[in-house]
Amino acid sequence: MKVTIIGVGLIGGSLALSMRDNGISSSITGVDKDPENARKALELGLVDEIADMKEAVGGADLVVIATPVDSIPLIAVKLLNDIRPGQVVIDTGSIKTELSEVVRCHPNRGRLVATHPMWGTEYSGPQAAVKGAFRGRTVVICDREASDPDAVVLVEEVYSRIGMPVSYMSSEEQDLHSAYVSHISHITSFALALTVLEKEREEEHIFDLAGGGFESTVRLAKSSPQTWVPILLKNKYNVLDVLREHIHQLNIIRKLLERDQGRELAAAIEKANSISRIIDKKPNEK
Amino acid sequence: MKVTIIGVGLIGGSLALSMRDNGISSSITGVDKDPENARKALELGLVDEIADMKEAVGGADLVVIATPVDSIPLIAVKLLNDIRPGQVVIDTGSIKTELSEVVRCHPNRGRLVATHPMWGTEYSGPQAAVKGAFRGRTVVICDREASDPDAVVLVEEVYSRIGMPVSYMSSEEQDLHSAYVSHISHITSFALALTVLEKEREEEHIFDLAGGGFESTVRLAKSSPQTWVPILLKNKYNVLDVLREHIHQLNIIRKLLERDQGRELAAAIEKANSISRIIDKKPNEK
Repeated sequence: MKVTIIGVGLIGGSLALSMRDNGISSSITGVDKDPENARKALELGLVDEIADMKEAVGGADLVVIATPVDSIPLIAVKLLNDIRPGQVVIDTGSIKTELSEVVRCHPNRGRLVATHPMWGTEYSGPQAAVKGAFRGRTVVICDREASDPDAVVLVEEVYSRIGMPVSYMSSEEQDLHSAYVSHISHITSFALALTVLEKEREEEHIFDLAGGGFESTVRLAKSSPQTWVPILLKNKYNVLDVLREHIHQLNIIRKLLERDQGRELAAAIEKANSISRIIDKKPNEK
Repeated sequence: MKVTIIGVGLIGGSLALSMRDNGISSSITGVDKDPENARKALELGLVDEIADMKEAVGGADLVVIATPVDSIPLIAVKLLNDIRPGQVVIDTGSIKTELSEVVRCHPNRGRLVATHPMWGTEYSGPQAAVKGAFRGRTVVICDREASDPDAVVLVEEVYSRIGMPVSYMSSEEQDLHSAYVSHISHITSFALALTVLEKEREEEHIFDLAGGGFESTVRLAKSSPQTWVPILLKNKYNVLDVLREHIHQLNIIRKLLERDQGRELAAAIEKANSISRIIDKKPNEK
C-alpha cells in the first residue's frame, strides 16, 4: 500500500516507522511545509521520498494527516475535495469536534476516518520519531458511522498490525476523554515546572531534582507550545472543566493541610489510591 | 559489617538488598513492629533474621531507621540513649527539621547521620522492595557538621558503594527541597486522581487511560496514606508554600485559556520548557 504522510514530526515520523516495520506500506511519501523537517525525515529514513502535497496525495492509497490540530480541518477538506474512489484519509489529532463539524456535509466525508492513536512523548520533530511506538496503546476511532465501511476496515487493519487495540467514541466523547487522560496532565506539568522555576529564582539555588517523583510528573512540561497551544485552545471548554475541578481538589488538600486534618487527608489519599483500579487494568480486561 | 534495619518496608527492604549485593553487610537483622511485615521480609530473604529492637541494635555496627517519618525522632533518641562507641545510626526519612531539633542536645548526637536517599516508588511494604534501587540517585546528608567525622565517613562509604552521589544540606534546606522535588508531585498526583474519579462518577463512564501522559503524572497517586500523611503534615509549611504557588500557576493558565490568550499561553509553555535545563542535567554536571 502506498502511504503519504503529511507532517513528518513525532507522530507522523513514528507512524511511518511502524507502518514500514509491520509491512503495511510499500512506499512512504512525506509532505512537510517546513523544508528542514522534510529534509531531516528523508535523511533519517522515515520516508522514502519527499513531494509536494498535490503530487504526494495523487498516487497514495492511504493519506495520513499528522500536523498540529489547528491545521487538520482545512487540510482534510482540501484532501476530500480531490479524493479518488478507493483512497482513504486519516488524521492523528488529539481533538476531533471541530474536524467532525467541518467535514460533516462533505460529499466525500466517508473517505475520512478520524483517529487518535494515543501515544506521544514530550519531544517533537522528525528527530523525535521512535521505532516501535504505538504498540499496546489504544487508538480511538471517532464517529465510525460517518466513514465508509471499507475505509474503516482498512484503517482498523492498519492499526491492528501496528499493535493498537481500537476504541470507538463520538468526537465529543473523545475530546472530553482526551482532556482527562492527556491535556490536564500537560497543564499540571507546565504549572509544576513554572512553580519550581519561580522558586528557583527566589532562592537563587539550583534544585537537585533527581529522584523523588518530580521527574515523572514534570516530564511533559518539555512539550512544545507549537503542539500544545492549539490543542488546549481548541479543546478549551473540556480542558477548563477538568482544570477547574483539578484546582478545586488541590484547594481541598490545601485546606486539610492548613487545618492539620490528618484523618481527612488520609481518607482523600485512600480515595486517590483507587485510581489504580483504572490505570492498572490490562487492555484485555477493558 | 553487621547491619540492623528498623522498618523493613519499601525503603528498608530495598536498602537491605543494596547493602548485601554491594558487599556492605555481613549480616542484616530486621526489626518491624508489624509481625506480618517482619515475617514477609524474612521469607523474601531481605534480612537474615528478625529480632526485637533491643537485641537487634545491641550487636549492630550500623543501625538504619527506615520507618514512617513521624516515628523517626523518638526512635532516634532511644537508640542514641543506649548507643555504644563505634556504632552509627542513620535514618532515611524525607524530612529532617524535627529530627534535627529533637536530637540537637543529645550527648550522643554525633553518632547519628541524618540521610535522605532520594528514591522511592508508589508501593509500600517488604514485598515492594527492589533490587538495584538507589543506584544513580542522590542521597542528601543533613547537618553533616553535627555528626562525628568517623560516622560521616562510614555513611558516605556505604552510600557510595550503593552507587549514590552525595549532596550536603542543612535540615531546613533539605525539607524545602523535598517539598519541591517530591512532596508537591505527590499532591498533584493525588488531586489529579481525585479529579478523574470525580468525573468518572458523574459520567458513569470508565475512562480508558492507557497512553496520553496520564499514567506517568498520576502514578504517584497510588502512594499510601500511612507514608504520606505524616510527611505532608510534618513538612506542612514548606508544602503549603509550594502548593499555593502551584495553584497560582494553574490559575494563570486557566485565565489565559478562558481569554483565548494563545500568545501568552505559548510564552508560559516556553518558559515551562526550560525545566529541561534542570531535569536533564547529568549528575556529574551538577
